[in-house]
Amino acid sequence: MTSAPLMMQEAVTAPAAVRRLLDSDTAAVAALADRLRAVPPPFAMTIARGSSDHAAGYARYLFETALGLVTASAAPSVVTAYGADLRVKDAFVLAISQSGQSPDLLCVAEAARAGGAVTAALVNAEDAPLAERVAHPLPLHAGPELSVAATKSFVASLAAIARLTAVWMDDRTLLDALPRLPFWLERAGAADWSAALPVLEAVSSLLIVARGRSYPIAQEMALKFKETAAAHAEPFSAAEVMHGPMALVEPGFPVLVVAVRDETLDGVLDTARALKEAGAHLLVASAEERALALADTPLLLPPPLHPVLDPIAAIQAFYPFMARLAVARGFDPDRPRHLRKVTRTI
Amino acid sequence: MTSAPLMMQEAVTAPAAVRRLLDSDTAAVAALADRLRAVPPPFAMTIARGSSDHAAGYARYLFETALGLVTASAAPSVVTAYGADLRVKDAFVLAISQSGQSPDLLCVAEAARAGGAVTAALVNAEDAPLAERVAHPLPLHAGPELSVAATKSFVASLAAIARLTAVWMDDRTLLDALPRLPFWLERAGAADWSAALPVLEAVSSLLIVARGRSYPIAQEMALKFKETAAAHAEPFSAAEVMHGPMALVEPGFPVLVVAVRDETLDGVLDTARALKEAGAHLLVASAEERALALADTPLLLPPPLHPVLDPIAAIQAFYPFMARLAVARGFDPDRPRHLRKVTRTI
Repeated sequence: MTSAPLMMQEAVTAPAAVRRLLDSDTAAVAALADRLRAVPPPFAMTIARGSSDHAAGYARYLFETALGLVTASAAPSVVTAYGADLRVKDAFVLAISQSGQSPDLLCVAEAARAGGAVTAALVNAEDAPLAERVAHPLPLHAGPELSVAATKSFVASLAAIARLTAVWMDDRTLLDALPRLPFWLERAGAADWSAALPVLEAVSSLLIVARGRSYPIAQEMALKFKETAAAHAEPFSAAEVMHGPMALVEPGFPVLVVAVRDETLDGVLDTARALKEAGAHLLVASAEERALALADTPLLLPPPLHPVLDPIAAIQAFYPFMARLAVARGFDPDRPRHLRKVTRTI
Repeated sequence: MTSAPLMMQEAVTAPAAVRRLLDSDTAAVAALADRLRAVPPPFAMTIARGSSDHAAGYARYLFETALGLVTASAAPSVVTAYGADLRVKDAFVLAISQSGQSPDLLCVAEAARAGGAVTAALVNAEDAPLAERVAHPLPLHAGPELSVAATKSFVASLAAIARLTAVWMDDRTLLDALPRLPFWLERAGAADWSAALPVLEAVSSLLIVARGRSYPIAQEMALKFKETAAAHAEPFSAAEVMHGPMALVEPGFPVLVVAVRDETLDGVLDTARALKEAGAHLLVASAEERALALADTPLLLPPPLHPVLDPIAAIQAFYPFMARLAVARGFDPDRPRHLRKVTRTI
């Protein structure tokens, strides 16, 4: 008997990781929120790479939609290669990293702190150098992550971002929904997406489409397709895919649509219809009847909990499926070709 | 005798378009630069989609490296779907659009102006609604663009961004180099990349790698591969490609590397070596001997003019090649599947 891939073993512990996260660091999060309310930052900037950069994208949507706070994503090369001195005084700078070790992220975080930003970091390894470089380190409590393909640390990052936003805004509805998130994630993790296995077992190329707060989920899914199963999946927002990428679609071309019930849903479904008309094979991950009805392959998500949290359920439903698909495609999801866990770029 | 694709006909006029651009609107650009120097903006935000969004990425690298001005990219859905009220007082907000008609861009630009931002727009159609929505409209002067695949309007956008940055910074070296850009682009457009035709004639998937100020060029190239030739090309920064996407590489997998001589070159070449070691077939677009020496298929660029302008030469060399490749792959680059010139997303 062979054991399940590490990726799968770690993914199923994400709900417990989120429970630990929500039970921890209440005072530290409140202190950061107090600081941000006391002097509202003119803008925010995130520092991250890989899966953590997708979590940073989720932070951007939350900060912009909930707080009207324009959020930029740092290109580390601007600082590390070009030596730019970014003006970040009073800005909120949030670094996200599982390992907290990548030299480029450390460099940008240090420069931001020296430049007068309010710096925070979501880091899984609590004693990582990144945690020491910022004023507000916020541990993810996901436990050691050994799989090269991040799972539980990504889910914990999203939960940490949702909590920070809820505390910052004092958003009662979101604060009330958060404690139910771990149980919701358990439900999501039990979703049966096996109908998609034969559809995707042999494809070389696919698109993943979502919008707004769910777009970072599409980015994370696409990276996992490449990383663990050597399938060329590319993420697009439901609006951007109409500006060119749609030309890839020929009859049967697979498109995975993530359709969560929020203000973007109608637009996402319009795009899904256009893609279907162009001949795409639509896989639709959703809890919405009218979204699932469009699908060639419907992929059920748990019923909505809260529009800010529902994208997290979508990725939790996806991870175990992806580990299985990788194996079905003949890959070991724990040993992506050419990759190491900590990528040291400058 | 069939005539050349419209895409090709329009691409070859880009140098003349840039010459017109540089000869026009000197007072308008100076007025905007004066305004931005008088009250330095706390941050910048770009508004764009498709190719124009790649130009916006170039603006971001220039504003950040030359001015230390953190630059965010607006996700239109934040305003149009979620109804967020972005705080942009005194920020510099730059919209870029060939047609200047897309309702979502108009909506975000209007909201930015109402919110107290310094608003500008690069628009090709001078009487477009977008030009009326901003305080500083800056026409691109590229002439009517009929091909669905944007070429000359993209090149003109990059030149306009370089000029604005040079005037804003009063960067004498860059100001001196700019008038030579049109002639340089003519040279670039005459580059012979036909060695890449057989390599890419039948591929379904490829990666395009660059970094820093050249990264937006990789994005634009990837979009053109999808749009005009149904080839699934995806852009990655030379740092980010090491975080997962590299797992796609198997022996012979094509990777196009854009290697321009600036502070990022060593990092780009490190990544190119790692990709080659993983078995990739490297196509390298460069003027640098040591970059070309790594290539399985070297693609010559003109010698350096200025590190800020050299990425523009790379895309000008690429467009005529891409139009030929599209035809070689059996497509009409002027009639991408499923697409229209003006995409009206909300």
